[in-house]
Amino acid sequence: MPELRKDPVLGRWIIISKERGKRPTDFVIEDHKKLGGGFCPLCPGNEKTTPAEVLVYGRAGGGANSSNWQLRVVPNKYPALIIEGELDKEGEGLYDKMNGIGAHEVIIEGPGHEDKFTYLPPDRMLLVFRAYRDRIRDLSNDNRFRYVMVFKNHGRAAGASLEHSHSQLVALPILPRMVVSELEGSLSYYNYKDRCIFCDIIRQEVKQKIRLVCENDEFVTLTPFAPRTPFEMWVMPKRHNSSYIDQDEGTMVALTEIFSESLRRLDKCIPGAPYNFVLHTQPLRSKHLKHYHWHFEIAPKLTSIAGFEWGSGFYINAMPPEDTCIYLREAF
Amino acid sequence: MPELRKDPVLGRWIIISKERGKRPTDFVIEDHKKLGGGFCPLCPGNEKTTPAEVLVYGRAGGGANSSNWQLRVVPNKYPALIIEGELDKEGEGLYDKMNGIGAHEVIIEGPGHEDKFTYLPPDRMLLVFRAYRDRIRDLSNDNRFRYVMVFKNHGRAAGASLEHSHSQLVALPILPRMVVSELEGSLSYYNYKDRCIFCDIIRQEVKQKIRLVCENDEFVTLTPFAPRTPFEMWVMPKRHNSSYIDQDEGTMVALTEIFSESLRRLDKCIPGAPYNFVLHTQPLRSKHLKHYHWHFEIAPKLTSIAGFEWGSGFYINAMPPEDTCIYLREAF
Repeated sequence: MPELRKDPVLGRWIIISKERGKRPTDFVIEDHKKLGGGFCPLCPGNEKTTPAEVLVYGRAGGGANSSNWQLRVVPNKYPALIIEGELDKEGEGLYDKMNGIGAHEVIIEGPGHEDKFTYLPPDRMLLVFRAYRDRIRDLSNDNRFRYVMVFKNHGRAAGASLEHSHSQLVALPILPRMVVSELEGSLSYYNYKDRCIFCDIIRQEVKQKIRLVCENDEFVTLTPFAPRTPFEMWVMPKRHNSSYIDQDEGTMVALTEIFSESLRRLDKCIPGAPYNFVLHTQPLRSKHLKHYHWHFEIAPKLTSIAGFEWGSGFYINAMPPEDTCIYLREAF
Repeated sequence: MPELRKDPVLGRWIIISKERGKRPTDFVIEDHKKLGGGFCPLCPGNEKTTPAEVLVYGRAGGGANSSNWQLRVVPNKYPALIIEGELDKEGEGLYDKMNGIGAHEVIIEGPGHEDKFTYLPPDRMLLVFRAYRDRIRDLSNDNRFRYVMVFKNHGRAAGASLEHSHSQLVALPILPRMVVSELEGSLSYYNYKDRCIFCDIIRQEVKQKIRLVCENDEFVTLTPFAPRTPFEMWVMPKRHNSSYIDQDEGTMVALTEIFSESLRRLDKCIPGAPYNFVLHTQPLRSKHLKHYHWHFEIAPKLTSIAGFEWGSGFYINAMPPEDTCIYLREAF
């Protein structure tokens, strides 16, 4: 059983996932391991090698887990958290822990092994954003969970262990520290100004145009004022909304358009750049929040110098967002 | 002029350091660049290629910046922050920034190019810990600075860009977020319990002995209860003290002994493991704090899967600290 543990000083929760356990010698080997190399469990025809699907789009005939599909969502075969059991919160002296109950799913973004998310046709990328929405909706029915974190690792340096294009989600019984900090920070601004800080950011950026990468009727992509890494981008809905899952189909089409454009601009600047993106949205079953605003954060993984930053929480960024914005804007 | 910028939602400060500026194409190249390869600016004989030294130990004759020394501290040639100027705090709409004033120094740990910190003889490693103390003391006389962060990147994966063994320090006009969180977290515990949380952690760990790697009269090394990465270790003084710079020589000898032993245990488990360590100590010119306790955190950089964790602040650790502790304890 995996375990959730809280750092007693920082209040940060982490997952100890023995199921993924390793011996010390495994680590060094992993650094040199190549991606891919033969069998791909995410390819059509290999459906039986993954756990049974929890969502499928575009299956034309055939039974569950047959080979004809456009997008599948399956539980992770090596989950960081497991779905069955009770939380059993308990202390160990001054420490706090609970069972690692949660969901860990893989969104297989399409049948093509070589397809890159960045260059998926719009109708295919739309399915991915729809899958995020539908899975969060479904998982919010489970009262044990408080948050669903959706993310994508693209490229080995960004943590992808399979080449076949996929994203992941983790349903959690706790709120991750980053979410708590965002909620607190934006609430404190709201209490002071009576306005959503993200709405204010969008207003200022659209006016100043020095960190505005691109926009359409419903979304903006900008390079944030204080980015941790060069070419970091935030994709944000213009209309105030704290919850990703309340988007209608039209908004989701606009999201697909700007997301695809943003990633293609990045790929033009740094071909093949590894990246992570993370969906930031409100906690499950929360009422609509006036102070919070859902968005995606895209962070390319360009250098290995994040070691110190990772350890200290303090970031040195070699490129101002105003400069990366120019590169991104002029990419095409 | 570098710039310090604050994320308006999270309150996290970052450094934008144009002086280290790059074009997009530089990033991909860096990933494949090899360490070393010929000229080393940190080797004896090349003193003129670094900025003039601010501290030297063991020079037997010869003028400043001559070749005979045991340890040198020099300003970083490519500093993330610069030492001269005023902070000039200002807003930009809803954003906050200030000039990137600070010190960025390199502690050259010895003359030998091939020497590894882990295997330095005790009298040589002692010089390094003494240099940290002496530089922090000196920099605390500059009222513009609020914190000195001391850290080491060992190995390419952990961010080292030069092979010659060295550590770094950054004197900052702001408190890094991690420091603020530690101060707040430990204060809140102190207010509730009237005890230092770190002292309580040490007491519990010495009693339980399941995460205790090694100890001597003055220090313990433990694998923390909620580590972000396998083989993370904390080196902590047993006696309550919030400030690194108040150690006497005897304590520093004991620190050298346990630090050296801890790193050798790690190297035995994972030969050549890249790692970072960061000194956690109280802000400059602060009174002694009853709730805070200085210590070192050592974090091996073993996998590249930190991408998502890095982006979300949420960590999945494949190895419980009780298991890594057994490996470390049985290393010799």
